[in-house]
Amino acid sequence: MTGRFGRLEEEKVFKDPVHRYIHVRDELIWELIGTREFQRLRRVRQLGTTYLTFHGAEHTRFNHSLGVYEIMRRIVENMEEREHWDSEERLVCLSAALLHDIGHGPFSHSFEKVFHTDHEEWTRKIILGDTEVHKVLLKMGQDFPKKVADVIAKTYPNKLVVSLISSQIDADRMDYLLRDAFYTGVSYGHFDMERLLRVMRPMEDSAVFKHSGMHAVEDYIMSRYQMYWQVYFHPVTRSAEVILSKILHRAKHLYEQNYQFKDKPKHFISLFSGSITLEDYLKLDESIILYYFQEWQDEADAILKDLCQRFMDRRLFKYVECDPSAQMKIWTELNQLFIKIGLDPTYYLVIDSSSDLPYDFYRPGEEEERLPIHLLKPTGELRELSRESDVVEAISGKKRTDHKLYFPKDILENDTTFAEEKKRILELLMAQEG
Amino acid sequence: MTGRFGRLEEEKVFKDPVHRYIHVRDELIWELIGTREFQRLRRVRQLGTTYLTFHGAEHTRFNHSLGVYEIMRRIVENMEEREHWDSEERLVCLSAALLHDIGHGPFSHSFEKVFHTDHEEWTRKIILGDTEVHKVLLKMGQDFPKKVADVIAKTYPNKLVVSLISSQIDADRMDYLLRDAFYTGVSYGHFDMERLLRVMRPMEDSAVFKHSGMHAVEDYIMSRYQMYWQVYFHPVTRSAEVILSKILHRAKHLYEQNYQFKDKPKHFISLFSGSITLEDYLKLDESIILYYFQEWQDEADAILKDLCQRFMDRRLFKYVECDPSAQMKIWTELNQLFIKIGLDPTYYLVIDSSSDLPYDFYRPGEEEERLPIHLLKPTGELRELSRESDVVEAISGKKRTDHKLYFPKDILENDTTFAEEKKRILELLMAQEG
Amino acid sequence: MTGRFGRLEEEKVFKDPVHRYIHVRDELIWELIGTREFQRLRRVRQLGTTYLTFHGAEHTRFNHSLGVYEIMRRIVENMEEREHWDSEERLVCLSAALLHDIGHGPFSHSFEKVFHTDHEEWTRKIILGDTEVHKVLLKMGQDFPKKVADVIAKTYPNKLVVSLISSQIDADRMDYLLRDAFYTGVSYGHFDMERLLRVMRPMEDSAVFKHSGMHAVEDYIMSRYQMYWQVYFHPVTRSAEVILSKILHRAKHLYEQNYQFKDKPKHFISLFSGSITLEDYLKLDESIILYYFQEWQDEADAILKDLCQRFMDRRLFKYVECDPSAQMKIWTELNQLFIKIGLDPTYYLVIDSSSDLPYDFYRPGEEEERLPIHLLKPTGELRELSRESDVVEAISGKKRTDHKLYFPKDILENDTTFAEEKKRILELLMAQEG
Amino acid sequence: MTGRFGRLEEEKVFKDPVHRYIHVRDELIWELIGTREFQRLRRVRQLGTTYLTFHGAEHTRFNHSLGVYEIMRRIVENMEEREHWDSEERLVCLSAALLHDIGHGPFSHSFEKVFHTDHEEWTRKIILGDTEVHKVLLKMGQDFPKKVADVIAKTYPNKLVVSLISSQIDADRMDYLLRDAFYTGVSYGHFDMERLLRVMRPMEDSAVFKHSGMHAVEDYIMSRYQMYWQVYFHPVTRSAEVILSKILHRAKHLYEQNYQFKDKPKHFISLFSGSITLEDYLKLDESIILYYFQEWQDEADAILKDLCQRFMDRRLFKYVECDPSAQMKIWTELNQLFIKIGLDPTYYLVIDSSSDLPYDFYRPGEEEERLPIHLLKPTGELRELSRESDVVEAISGKKRTDHKLYFPKDILENDTTFAEEKKRILELLMAQEG
Repeated sequence: MTGRFGRLEEEKVFKDPVHRYIHVRDELIWELIGTREFQRLRRVRQLGTTYLTFHGAEHTRFNHSLGVYEIMRRIVENMEEREHWDSEERLVCLSAALLHDIGHGPFSHSFEKVFHTDHEEWTRKIILGDTEVHKVLLKMGQDFPKKVADVIAKTYPNKLVVSLISSQIDADRMDYLLRDAFYTGVSYGHFDMERLLRVMRPMEDSAVFKHSGMHAVEDYIMSRYQMYWQVYFHPVTRSAEVILSKILHRAKHLYEQNYQFKDKPKHFISLFSGSITLEDYLKLDESIILYYFQEWQDEADAILKDLCQRFMDRRLFKYVECDPSAQMKIWTELNQLFIKIGLDPTYYLVIDSSSDLPYDFYRPGEEEERLPIHLLKPTGELRELSRESDVVEAISGKKRTDHKLYFPKDILENDTTFAEEKKRILELLMAQEG
Repeated sequence: MTGRFGRLEEEKVFKDPVHRYIHVRDELIWELIGTREFQRLRRVRQLGTTYLTFHGAEHTRFNHSLGVYEIMRRIVENMEEREHWDSEERLVCLSAALLHDIGHGPFSHSFEKVFHTDHEEWTRKIILGDTEVHKVLLKMGQDFPKKVADVIAKTYPNKLVVSLISSQIDADRMDYLLRDAFYTGVSYGHFDMERLLRVMRPMEDSAVFKHSGMHAVEDYIMSRYQMYWQVYFHPVTRSAEVILSKILHRAKHLYEQNYQFKDKPKHFISLFSGSITLEDYLKLDESIILYYFQEWQDEADAILKDLCQRFMDRRLFKYVECDPSAQMKIWTELNQLFIKIGLDPTYYLVIDSSSDLPYDFYRPGEEEERLPIHLLKPTGELRELSRESDVVEAISGKKRTDHKLYFPKDILENDTTFAEEKKRILELLMAQEG
Repeated sequence: MTGRFGRLEEEKVFKDPVHRYIHVRDELIWELIGTREFQRLRRVRQLGTTYLTFHGAEHTRFNHSLGVYEIMRRIVENMEEREHWDSEERLVCLSAALLHDIGHGPFSHSFEKVFHTDHEEWTRKIILGDTEVHKVLLKMGQDFPKKVADVIAKTYPNKLVVSLISSQIDADRMDYLLRDAFYTGVSYGHFDMERLLRVMRPMEDSAVFKHSGMHAVEDYIMSRYQMYWQVYFHPVTRSAEVILSKILHRAKHLYEQNYQFKDKPKHFISLFSGSITLEDYLKLDESIILYYFQEWQDEADAILKDLCQRFMDRRLFKYVECDPSAQMKIWTELNQLFIKIGLDPTYYLVIDSSSDLPYDFYRPGEEEERLPIHLLKPTGELRELSRESDVVEAISGKKRTDHKLYFPKDILENDTTFAEEKKRILELLMAQEG
Repeated sequence: MTGRFGRLEEEKVFKDPVHRYIHVRDELIWELIGTREFQRLRRVRQLGTTYLTFHGAEHTRFNHSLGVYEIMRRIVENMEEREHWDSEERLVCLSAALLHDIGHGPFSHSFEKVFHTDHEEWTRKIILGDTEVHKVLLKMGQDFPKKVADVIAKTYPNKLVVSLISSQIDADRMDYLLRDAFYTGVSYGHFDMERLLRVMRPMEDSAVFKHSGMHAVEDYIMSRYQMYWQVYFHPVTRSAEVILSKILHRAKHLYEQNYQFKDKPKHFISLFSGSITLEDYLKLDESIILYYFQEWQDEADAILKDLCQRFMDRRLFKYVECDPSAQMKIWTELNQLFIKIGLDPTYYLVIDSSSDLPYDFYRPGEEEERLPIHLLKPTGELRELSRESDVVEAISGKKRTDHKLYFPKDILENDTTFAEEKKRILELLMAQEG
């Protein structure tokens, strides 16, 4: 490398409960960790509202980003001993691993849906814009920041490098599965990472896995599948997300209606108006959001006030399973009944759908192509995983979606007013579950 | 019990990474967890600024409080099978365990020092005042809230119950050692809790431990000792605390000087003026504090601005060991040099002292008497732990204090101005360590 | 119970690395553990020759039997709180769990194949015959031993009790998966046992699982599947088993041919002649077998000597995949070549097949019917697992068999004699792998 | 290196539950593991009779030896990056680590006491004698075997290398503490090995530890202390050892008295007569011993028969604490009473003493000098650990010995004969405990 950074005089370590230690040997990495944009990730939880379901899941994206870096460091160390690896790419790779999530804001999932922002775009802006991160990267060379951004954007020419960060089995996914399992305390999510790294073989376009390691790959895929259904799509978390996005919707709506907030929500203005700058964006973290949610508990608007109280005090919506395609008639009746009892169904009767593709392979024309996992036979032949593994085949390409209908059961069960209507609503809702 | 609560129809569980599951079988406990005051603990980290040293330590007091409750539940279950235990106290005990930290505010350590608040007093107010917690407790009987508050205040007549929550080995300490070790990832802090619970025997005034379990008790004491020095008194965490308390000091000072903040720090006003109400207090959580710290990064006051930037971006002070008693002359020179180069030593040259008594026994006249740990011989005789264990004896009653001098090394190393003075300052500082 | 045993005055515990503690509260269980027949299980490894592949797998059936007992104790404790459970069966259940493997001899797998013994039959004889175990059980009542034996033999009228010990998810399987994973060090084999026990519901004929626990059940099935392929059917272990059974075959053959052993193999005589008594059987343990194998290293018979040296020094056979149905011609040639170079193919060219049914449900007429796993919907409806789970469906009822051809590669590669023939043999063998 | 071995084409790994994987990259190490002398360690348990107390402790010296090798491999890898390390010594070091226990026989502790053998002497003979191990080592050079033997014998000139295998903190002790804790399931014995390795610094004569790692060293010392008292000196294990050594004593005595054994104990003859050869020694393993113990259960000699039955069926002696110096009178009476009731006190009334020095430093003139642990200050100064650490100081140099008196309580409690005398014996024994 021709940059101004070299090796640290003495290796630095971070104590990490998942990987035991995170090892930093490069000045570049050390300085990137010290930037304010990277430190900001300490104020953004890794799993958004999941802590309302699994109280242990309070870890942040800072925590996870160090983990992804560490896994990449180990992959790179392994690969340097082998052929296909161009060691020049080492620091590009490590930086991309460390920074891949730097564009995430607070509660990204709901924010992106409501405000049409895109954390990948922000990642790019942070790496290429006027930031401390950018200044540090620049010391490695004029085109270094762009290389790092390209890896994360998957447009980097070296597809192997790209695949190590974004593919079916990449450093990102390996870390989050292990880490989220650790912090939630669930027993799923464990797999033998050390073995996966050992059987990983770099090829021109991506890493493949020795066929003898197939069961370790299967185990990884199954862990992912379990984590999706046990943790990521947990219906209680989705309830919190429903309320969260309805708060954002309502606040935006009120702003557009020239509603007078008690205090001007200055951090939100540019979000509401779609004119957010990098500087504005970097100020957003979970404390800011939670500050407003707490303030809004005292707003005059009944909906905003109620939703914020629900979120802060964790009085979430309950849910029933539903089949949105089949029940238009009931749906109409429910909406009318909600209006009748004074609950705006836009905010209080919400369908949420989840879907998951725990393993999938290339199907041309799909919006986001997912590269398949290949196994390498002793003969040199490559075989696509789902053709070799019954288990993976069973869950491949099956888009499993579940639909749930969320609503404030507490209000409906309080029958001092509209007793009749509420009883009918509850009947209709409970009948969904059949 | 004569209260209005009974057993839950179906046991509820929380997945917990430390105890695997938290089991809730009583309606009372379930309702207490659902109160807004208890939910607020989700927004207060268990270890304050420690996450700036150990990135895994992002867990909250909510997380810990459930753990203390769970340990107490197991103790009570064990004790119900034995003699000295009055099963009527069960729910008092469980409630006190759950609520023992409910009065904690954000970054308690520094807040209490600067604003002279006391989390134990707030705990009492929350339990006895006009809160959801109080309302729930009241359903158990008119005097139930007071009983719970008295247990936490250690004034409850049944000293055994008190000792289970506040003694050398209590449910609180057992949980935080295990939990803090888990989340920081350090390998200290583990001990065989199950064995401790098994050898615990209720006596009239406190629980004692079967003599055959002495090594398990020793191991616990040593874990505590290690956690103190490896985690709780870690010099980097103390650096963050130094900056945090200096921010609070500065803001208070500015307020008292009628400094005009860009936005009125409304959540702080009653703190500054010493007139904080329960309602004000319950609004305080870490998001609120961090919101202001972020805002104050743009204040006109250079000291407040700088300290807030340091805290948010984790640009902490460095430190040297020092002996505050021996070096008055150097101390005076350092202060003068700091003033000369434009750094107010009140904020930028700070001595911090830690001390620890990992195990201690009763010494009359001490402010806070710590009850000794007693071992129960097969003959029925009780022996005080430090008389039986060389290891414990070695660390008993020894107040080990270390003093560190914190300062902004980055400024001192930037020698474009006051190069001479800065060089001298660094010389003086480095000479301390000798 | 009307027996002569009651509760122990003080609970006894065994420290166990898998379940932390094994709790014994009943005199009956304590006495059973102390019998010589149960202590004998300390001299029989749980996984036979697997320690030659995974060096950690040195644990014994004693170790496992305590674990099965402990799981059963927890199941029973849970069930006692629920309806369908007859608490009278408690001790029958615990005894059966503890004793279910008591009939196992050393290296059962190969011994049973070669000598046509059956550990289940021996279990019955030990429980009902003139043994210490029998005497202890008898103190509970005249018919108590038979009850215990019937549970293990699956002929006991209470099918629920039977199913807790022998079904798709039983105490036996749960313990061995967790335990074998722990001792081998593989990361498969873990599942959330505590959750499985929590969602288990006793029905008349068997335990079912709450539908909400389906993913925990899936995870268990996948662990089993992984353990089968990663550990139980590991080709190196099978190589050790091949050699072991060939040693037994050879010794039997020599005995039948009136071969004169240097020392009379007195422990084997009744095995060879098929006239083994209970007293003879109880003397067999792994030390006895290994004693003979060591002795036989110095026998005159070249085959017995060589095989014993291979086993003791772990110079195992190598293997290639093969398709036994397709290659009769090659097979014939290989056999002839082996004979030509002086290696008896009966002992030196061995096909071994494994097969597994990780989950299967009832199919009438099958030799050993496996009861399906049922999920209990909130409505009370039961659903068979593989209809609900894609993953389980994918692996259900698929008899996956693999065939391997074992041979002494070391001899074939030593080409100082029969160089031509050996080269041809290796060509033929390597060609199998395709 | 000039030897005939190089790096393996592809790294080999062993799955290990303690270190996850054991990595083998050198042909030399691979071949050493394959020798029959090393494979023999699979038949010698690491903790002798401890499995009779902690059923999980069934692991062998094979298991442990691989672990010591792996730790050494990691130490060497770390050191190669630093100054004081001569990389030429690498394979000497790894081989010595792997082979350091190769001379251990079955139940060494008791065997060495009774037959005056010395496993260190046998280690030397195996490495230098006519063995497969020797032949493999020889391929590295004519003097290579001697170098390896010298390291183990602590006579090797490079004292740093010696200290890595035999000192207060060496690869051997680190592995056995972690491993024995893992297999017994006790929660002591854990320490942060990775941190110890990180703060280890090679000096000329030994490795020292950075002062900043003092607490990790303290934690290690405390783990050792706990393991000694919780596991290694467990009174039940000592009871098993008492019986074991009494069996060996009795058999030797009988042999010397020309007693006619049913079968000649051919493996023991040379042990009894003190003329054991290397070939004889290598045949000894636990199966051989247990074979004889089983056989001897049917001997005519009542003492040998009884002791062997006790050992096989784990009917151990009970114990009381005693003070051997103070009670000569009682001791005499007890002996006379034992003789009177027909129990030879030589075999049935046995004092066993344990002692431990968990940390000690150099005291000239002591038989076995233990090198102290030194801490390295940032200034380069070395400080002896116990001067820096109160905790270590507390346990340094204190020879803590406990004495226990073992006896067959079962016989004494059976009062159908000699009721009076037995009652008196029990009174005298129980009075010891005071």
